[in-house]
Amino acid sequence: MKISSIGEFGFINRIAPQFLKDIPDGVTGIGDDCAVIPWKENESLLVTTDMLIEDIHFLRTKISPRDLGYKSLAVNLSDIAAMGGTPESAFLSLGIPGDIDIEWLDDFYIGLDDLANQEHVLLLGGDTTKSSAKLVINITVIGKADPEFIKYRSTAKQGDIICVTGFIGDSGGGLKSLMEEKSLDDDIIYLIRRHNSPRAHLAEGVWLAKQEGVHAMMDVSDGIDSDLQRIMEKSRCGAKINIDNLPISQQLREVSGVFDWNSDEVAITGGEDYCLLVTVDPGLYNIISGKFEKEFHRKLPGIGLISNEEGKLKYFKNEKLVVIQGHGFDHFNNY
Amino acid sequence: MKISSIGEFGFINRIAPQFLKDIPDGVTGIGDDCAVIPWKENESLLVTTDMLIEDIHFLRTKISPRDLGYKSLAVNLSDIAAMGGTPESAFLSLGIPGDIDIEWLDDFYIGLDDLANQEHVLLLGGDTTKSSAKLVINITVIGKADPEFIKYRSTAKQGDIICVTGFIGDSGGGLKSLMEEKSLDDDIIYLIRRHNSPRAHLAEGVWLAKQEGVHAMMDVSDGIDSDLQRIMEKSRCGAKINIDNLPISQQLREVSGVFDWNSDEVAITGGEDYCLLVTVDPGLYNIISGKFEKEFHRKLPGIGLISNEEGKLKYFKNEKLVVIQGHGFDHFNNY
Repeated sequence: MKISSIGEFGFINRIAPQFLKDIPDGVTGIGDDCAVIPWKENESLLVTTDMLIEDIHFLRTKISPRDLGYKSLAVNLSDIAAMGGTPESAFLSLGIPGDIDIEWLDDFYIGLDDLANQEHVLLLGGDTTKSSAKLVINITVIGKADPEFIKYRSTAKQGDIICVTGFIGDSGGGLKSLMEEKSLDDDIIYLIRRHNSPRAHLAEGVWLAKQEGVHAMMDVSDGIDSDLQRIMEKSRCGAKINIDNLPISQQLREVSGVFDWNSDEVAITGGEDYCLLVTVDPGLYNIISGKFEKEFHRKLPGIGLISNEEGKLKYFKNEKLVVIQGHGFDHFNNY
Repeated sequence: MKISSIGEFGFINRIAPQFLKDIPDGVTGIGDDCAVIPWKENESLLVTTDMLIEDIHFLRTKISPRDLGYKSLAVNLSDIAAMGGTPESAFLSLGIPGDIDIEWLDDFYIGLDDLANQEHVLLLGGDTTKSSAKLVINITVIGKADPEFIKYRSTAKQGDIICVTGFIGDSGGGLKSLMEEKSLDDDIIYLIRRHNSPRAHLAEGVWLAKQEGVHAMMDVSDGIDSDLQRIMEKSRCGAKINIDNLPISQQLREVSGVFDWNSDEVAITGGEDYCLLVTVDPGLYNIISGKFEKEFHRKLPGIGLISNEEGKLKYFKNEKLVVIQGHGFDHFNNY
């Protein structure tokens, strides 16, 4: 049986029980953005790891080495942000094919170092090896968080308002622009920057995790259609999304207009926005979104509700149920 | 400039200073078997990561998925052993090419789980993704150790006796047997087992780290010729190896005799034995080796001395200086 027949998440669900059976109380293993390991009374370790493979996660012709170094770390920091933690140290494994120049690698490290310095993350180790075919990047990040304020995927509650901390779809629009080789204008450049050099919402994550009334949190990596299903699985609930409320940037609207893209679908299935997806107690939403706006000078838009229809993710536009084409990113759906 | 022109260690030396400049006191970054992060007063975190790429580190036709799962974890545990630590948790990233069956992956996880259970290591997370060409495995292991008893590569002293905690060359002999497609007999099977299913010397590492008089420690991964040079660089010293004293198994001697291999060269340059290389105060060697033999029921052979000739690694046989062909494993020397 090939993995394409069950998909990435089917495969994870197949192997996870074996490794979850002996996990001690208080430890979180496979199934959230980070593992959580209690360490001191008021401090838990957060650990996350991500593998990026050439021609699957990036094309070397479509991203500069500097951006790739930056982004490789950013996607891991985003997982730490999603639990409300602060990153501390990073470990980089690099599988290097024979056709890469040292100068290319120098630029990759400069990009990684830029973000590491910016977020006070120490690169403390790694592994450097030859790769037989493609460039392979694996980063592990260790962070910390007060266990009282760690947010999980499993704690969404029925009636919660689903919010996102930034525009969605920009990264997907950037990727589409790159793949369709669109001529560069300011809007296209903006979208490509959002794809190649995403920002992890670390400050937002720490802040939101401390708010009473924020229940569940994760980052937008595969697209909200796929990511919401992770929250639904873990919290045993459903979700209803109001497409009219999706925060879509002016740039994505403009470019979608020009090229006849469906910006709603790009926003829902595009992925890699690396903002946060949060569920908020409806009674506290107004207070929290007001405080969020004061703190971060932008809105915390509500895009839908957590429902009690377990496993059902429904989309509404002009109050009518609609069907979304494409379902977020599963690496194994196109073998 | 291509990486082959400076090699793996040249490349690491090129990028390391950038990341070592801001490391706080007490933290060990790039350059030892593990990173060391002080955490509690009597406990430091040890972190290590290793990337294994198909056709570079293993051939899928030459190792069973179960052994590969086991070995992938073992090589990381060996790094924890090398600092005198105890492993706690593991994080696995897997890049899976399209031609791998789920049943193959199940067996890989069984092998990994076997060793994890045996050493009480929890698999707490990871990443599963499609690979464009080859199978890629990256494991990060977090362990802990009392900072008082952590051993480094940098603390060898002139006059120290260099010891190894097990046979060397068996793994290299196993690899040679596999590559030369030797017919299987008991000796060949033994060597291949030692290559495909190595044991991390965790108990030995913890025990040795606590002995006064054990100065430097690392694991034998690239072969003692290459590994000793890491100790020499970090401790600013040289080394003299007495080839007559190398612990070479009866099986490797037999097989080398049959196929006209130079067993000394296999032992020195083969690599992947994953026993420990330790330097011991000459005044305490007899006591320590006696206690080691009582504890582990085998000898702690001295194979040479740390010298003051910085950067010079010399081999002697029958008290005569000899030159060794091949110099241990550098992934970049054969682009």
